Amino acid sequence: MKTFNQRLQSQINKRRSHLCVGLDIKPEALIVKNANLNDLIDHTKKVISATHDLVAAYKPNLAFFERWGSQGYKWLESTIDFIGSETLIIGDAKRGDIGSSAEQYALSLFNHFNFDAVTVNPYLGRDGIMPFLQYQGKGIFVLCKTSNPSAYEIQNVEDKDSPIYIKIARLVTDLNSENNIGLVIGATVPEDIKRVRALTPNIPFLIPGIGSQGGDFERSLKFGSQNGSVLISVSRSVIFSGDQSEKAIRDMAKNYVDRMKAILDE
Amino acid sequence: MKTFNQRLQSQINKRRSHLCVGLDIKPEALIVKNANLNDLIDHTKKVISATHDLVAAYKPNLAFFERWGSQGYKWLESTIDFIGSETLIIGDAKRGDIGSSAEQYALSLFNHFNFDAVTVNPYLGRDGIMPFLQYQGKGIFVLCKTSNPSAYEIQNVEDKDSPIYIKIARLVTDLNSENNIGLVIGATVPEDIKRVRALTPNIPFLIPGIGSQGGDFERSLKFGSQNGSVLISVSRSVIFSGDQSEKAIRDMAKNYVDRMKAILDE
Repeated sequence: MKTFNQRLQSQINKRRSHLCVGLDIKPEALIVKNANLNDLIDHTKKVISATHDLVAAYKPNLAFFERWGSQGYKWLESTIDFIGSETLIIGDAKRGDIGSSAEQYALSLFNHFNFDAVTVNPYLGRDGIMPFLQYQGKGIFVLCKTSNPSAYEIQNVEDKDSPIYIKIARLVTDLNSENNIGLVIGATVPEDIKRVRALTPNIPFLIPGIGSQGGDFERSLKFGSQNGSVLISVSRSVIFSGDQSEKAIRDMAKNYVDRMKAILDE
Repeated sequence: MKTFNQRLQSQINKRRSHLCVGLDIKPEALIVKNANLNDLIDHTKKVISATHDLVAAYKPNLAFFERWGSQGYKWLESTIDFIGSETLIIGDAKRGDIGSSAEQYALSLFNHFNFDAVTVNPYLGRDGIMPFLQYQGKGIFVLCKTSNPSAYEIQNVEDKDSPIYIKIARLVTDLNSENNIGLVIGATVPEDIKRVRALTPNIPFLIPGIGSQGGDFERSLKFGSQNGSVLISVSRSVIFSGDQSEKAIRDMAKNYVDRMKAILDE
């Protein structure tokens, strides 16, 4: 059986795309007035129909589904069914807990929801990460350097040796014996992408922060794609593009894919 | 309207109890063979019926519910209804995300599930914490020093100034203008409880790690209760006590409450 990191690179090659579309759909962002849960479900299907052949992966952030409780999790279950098995699905859960609870999250995300990979928060240390590494063919992306303004507060704390996010990169290299771990690094910090890439050849990077968050698309892709797989994750600027029609969404996704090809072919 | 931290201390006084029971129920731990979701629901009700007048708070860990997807979240919704409004309910969610996603988690946990307080992971810095502070009467407990063996890997990284967990304690003091923030510190590290308590008078502590995890009950309670509210969280040793009958569960909870009184009356 292929490892997740192999499956990821195969998928990027097959689709000729590094695009990962974040499914972060909230009523306040829809053109439809007073959108209800059915409107959100319809919009989710529209985004997937418009982009399924253009993306390497989808990345639903669980926050947007959990907002609606059990009904929201039904929406998530049906979204995963609707995407099907031809496209990778990354559960953006950012879970982190002590070992015995992390085991339950791993059962949730890999057994119940059947995500191909999930994002994991490293604040608890390796106990909170290891339960996610016991699933054949599945993978994880550990938060290394996130894309938000206050990311530096904890992640850049530096002892005599190196900042936290570099320690995370080293920890992940230690834990990668099954070739199933990657890192999340924000496009808002392309120099950090460059630095971590030099330390972690062959570790996949999931790079959010493009579009609304103002990350550096070109340098993030260039630095990230040297010696390793890279997914560029875009959410709001694709899923709420223009008049929010299927055409507007597809055109924006296609635009990202074409720009990636142009940058990498340079 | 009372702040959460005021509500917490009132509840501790009213119940004469610092006990928080973690509702972390999994089929592998039940005496019932091949337990299904209905067995888990029945056991949850049994635990609550056995202990509701003894506890200051319940703390369902969302991992154990999320394991079952939308059906598990229905179980969580019905559990919250079953507990009612006379006892505080802390959603042990350990969520942490960039601001716009943290807003969705806050809507989930405070608006949809109606938890009184939730646990929050600080790895993203203050952006990931602040959306949870916008809800009147609600509170949060920020992970400071967790109870698991590898907690030190990130939480004890120390720059020239202080380790991460001390920085978190200072950050939380900064953010506590509405008297709605506390800290999670494990009973496995009572000396750290003492150190943080000296820095953060009046900040409530939620202390897990008693029982199966082997934390130091007496010193944790003594150090934590100096100059601030404290909740001692116990899960497995109460909810799966003895023959798992209502009597066995109640006796163990009562035993904890009595021992707490004895320690504090010394």
